[in-house]
Amino acid sequence: MVVGAGLAGLTAARDLVAAGRSVAVLEARDRVGGRTLDADLGDGQVVEVGGQWVGPQQTALLALSRELDVATFATYEQGEHLLEWRSRVRRYTGTIPRLGPVVLADVAQAQLRTERMARTVPLDAPWAAPRALEWDATTMETWLRRNVRTAAARDLLRIGIEAVWAADAGELSLLHALFYLRSGEGWSALLDTRGGAQQDRFVGGSQLLSTRMAEQLEVLLEAPVRRVAQTADGVAVTSDAGTVRARHAVVAVPPALAARIEHDPPLPGARDQLTQRAPMGAVVKCHAVYDEPFWRTQGLSGTATSDAGPARVVFDNSPPSGRPGVLLAFLEGRAARTVPAGQRREVVLAGLARLFGRRAARPEHWLEQDWAAEPWSRGGYGGAFPPGTWTQLGPALRTPVGRVVWAGTETATRWNGYMDGAVRSGRAAAQQVLATASASRRRSPG
Amino acid sequence: MVVGAGLAGLTAARDLVAAGRSVAVLEARDRVGGRTLDADLGDGQVVEVGGQWVGPQQTALLALSRELDVATFATYEQGEHLLEWRSRVRRYTGTIPRLGPVVLADVAQAQLRTERMARTVPLDAPWAAPRALEWDATTMETWLRRNVRTAAARDLLRIGIEAVWAADAGELSLLHALFYLRSGEGWSALLDTRGGAQQDRFVGGSQLLSTRMAEQLEVLLEAPVRRVAQTADGVAVTSDAGTVRARHAVVAVPPALAARIEHDPPLPGARDQLTQRAPMGAVVKCHAVYDEPFWRTQGLSGTATSDAGPARVVFDNSPPSGRPGVLLAFLEGRAARTVPAGQRREVVLAGLARLFGRRAARPEHWLEQDWAAEPWSRGGYGGAFPPGTWTQLGPALRTPVGRVVWAGTETATRWNGYMDGAVRSGRAAAQQVLATASASRRRSPG
Repeated sequence: MVVGAGLAGLTAARDLVAAGRSVAVLEARDRVGGRTLDADLGDGQVVEVGGQWVGPQQTALLALSRELDVATFATYEQGEHLLEWRSRVRRYTGTIPRLGPVVLADVAQAQLRTERMARTVPLDAPWAAPRALEWDATTMETWLRRNVRTAAARDLLRIGIEAVWAADAGELSLLHALFYLRSGEGWSALLDTRGGAQQDRFVGGSQLLSTRMAEQLEVLLEAPVRRVAQTADGVAVTSDAGTVRARHAVVAVPPALAARIEHDPPLPGARDQLTQRAPMGAVVKCHAVYDEPFWRTQGLSGTATSDAGPARVVFDNSPPSGRPGVLLAFLEGRAARTVPAGQRREVVLAGLARLFGRRAARPEHWLEQDWAAEPWSRGGYGGAFPPGTWTQLGPALRTPVGRVVWAGTETATRWNGYMDGAVRSGRAAAQQVLATASASRRRSPG
Repeated sequence: MVVGAGLAGLTAARDLVAAGRSVAVLEARDRVGGRTLDADLGDGQVVEVGGQWVGPQQTALLALSRELDVATFATYEQGEHLLEWRSRVRRYTGTIPRLGPVVLADVAQAQLRTERMARTVPLDAPWAAPRALEWDATTMETWLRRNVRTAAARDLLRIGIEAVWAADAGELSLLHALFYLRSGEGWSALLDTRGGAQQDRFVGGSQLLSTRMAEQLEVLLEAPVRRVAQTADGVAVTSDAGTVRARHAVVAVPPALAARIEHDPPLPGARDQLTQRAPMGAVVKCHAVYDEPFWRTQGLSGTATSDAGPARVVFDNSPPSGRPGVLLAFLEGRAARTVPAGQRREVVLAGLARLFGRRAARPEHWLEQDWAAEPWSRGGYGGAFPPGTWTQLGPALRTPVGRVVWAGTETATRWNGYMDGAVRSGRAAAQQVLATASASRRRSPG
């Protein structure tokens, strides 16, 4: 059986069913999709208040979407982007705003060096990197301060880091940042729209992937799992909807949520401590909805970067039809945690108005999704490891405990933290279950 | 009502009862005492496998012990201490082994500078320290590497850090380390036996404090709290033993355990995220029990420090009678997490034999308490904050949420992480409840 009906859990269940198994999926919420969630804009249009993009490198997610007949369309980014920098707003093109050759060279050397360092981090065992102990005892912010000379380059990199991890450079283990950088195939793949992880979107919304999978599976909603008991021949998984017995359990939720499930016998100390040391990032996805994407007629893409914030990255998130016009403004990391909920709309709209003009301050609708306030997510995008986790507790992330197998994008080696990583983790978990099962069949007499 | 029958919860309950309140204490385990636990050595003698020491600065704990008529006795430390360093064993006296004037000066300057930095950290609001953002974006290990010149001084400081936090320097926020250093009144108070936090022990064992308090209170054991629901006029606290209604709840467990309680309405995002970012340290307390403390007759105190480990600090932990003889060896931080359980006895005894001779390798009894493997502790000694917690989520540590008040040593301003801090936190929580209650009475009509 599977705990969690997000992309990881549903993918695992789908693969197990395809292998002839009978699988129940238990989900805490009243819906499937986990950290993907489509909000209704009326007229059958949606906007995603959770994970949404897919890039050309994310082949597992793309393959799944093709199987499920969910089409993609290009993220809108025609025209010029905006940069608010040191209190001035200007236009730019390309991924990195033009901030002068010295700053750009400084950003480039930092990206190059971290990518070179990242190549020494084994994706399946980051703790085995030659300099793992040193890198896991320091933060990404410390690395920036020591290795990036210009303040502007540091600030620009910090904005990129917040956008990638929904966490501050100061809370990330340098080793984790390097692992993730390699897992996501480098800065360009992580940060770019065209050619990178923000390239495309799903027609009908990314949650559609989960709802389509769930239609072919046995999913029990509003069944938060409280307890997993293991015996020699199976597991008994107790949720608010009762107890399900099975041969294996795939726990397909982030470590910070897995932490809340009681285990009998208790988990090994290292596994329990891992779940204490894999905190979720923090993100509030804010959508301002206008009758039309008015910026487009001004030659603007809707993409914006700001050093003032509190929303430091903005995208055009209009549906494929281009009506209504939607601006997506992210509060990430510290901003997501510290801007009081009651002030978010006002300060984010003030920021949009500085970028896109006064019309941006008067949206017709306002959507705000604070993932840290969702008890069944506890934050987003994913678990962002602080110093000390990988080198002390890393092996516990993916090692099954008896008949319990761990999935979820936090366990992925490729595209960790992304929807693609979730799909890969689900596939891997199903394989683990099937491999264990066939091994134990071979051991059985006859 | 109170969640958790450790020192914090019981102290809170005791103060509330003294103020005329009716209080139920719900405890998950089948015993009281939390992270204090006395193990039977036979003949009415005990040894503590959890928190045990009290120092002269810890006036709240000392006052409580006097009220409860629990006597103290001096930790044995007569004679010379042992130091295993760079593969040689030698004897020394005083707190800091003699490693040459350059190394000692290096240790001294590091201690002096960190204490000076610590004085700028407000105990009730570490995030308000002038350099809080900078210090919370880096680790204690990074500070050591940059500011301590000799490898020997760094190693010695790392051993001290492990002994204080049961965590690696590399996993601690520098800001948290400085906060804790000030909370515990400086390096000497934290590290010393005579004159410091290891000076005295409790006759009959430290758990006696909790069992004595519990005798005068209504404590429900084996009642793990799963859910706290709040309404305008009260709380409903659901444990495995049913639902208790009360005007307030004092949750007196570490943040990492509080994380497991479901709240209705859900907690504010910042509070939930705080509980994801306050992981417990890791400690395995190993006791080797001999018929007599044979090291004493050799002029040895039983105190030892080793750079080889895995147990890097050792104490004489014999009962006041001196029979049996007990050596206490700590596995802390990385060692506690990474030495496989099945090898602990062998490698720890090998270490003791290198220090105390072959007789140390053949104890009559062996006790091993792995706090990370205790589901109702999840580690020890306490929550050790990684970078980013204090400055992003610090205010959520102590701010009540409606009628729920937070206690536990992790919330203490003075002697945070110690039994003394637990007692102080319990007192403070009771005061918060009483203040709120009298304020709301004043607001009521008539």
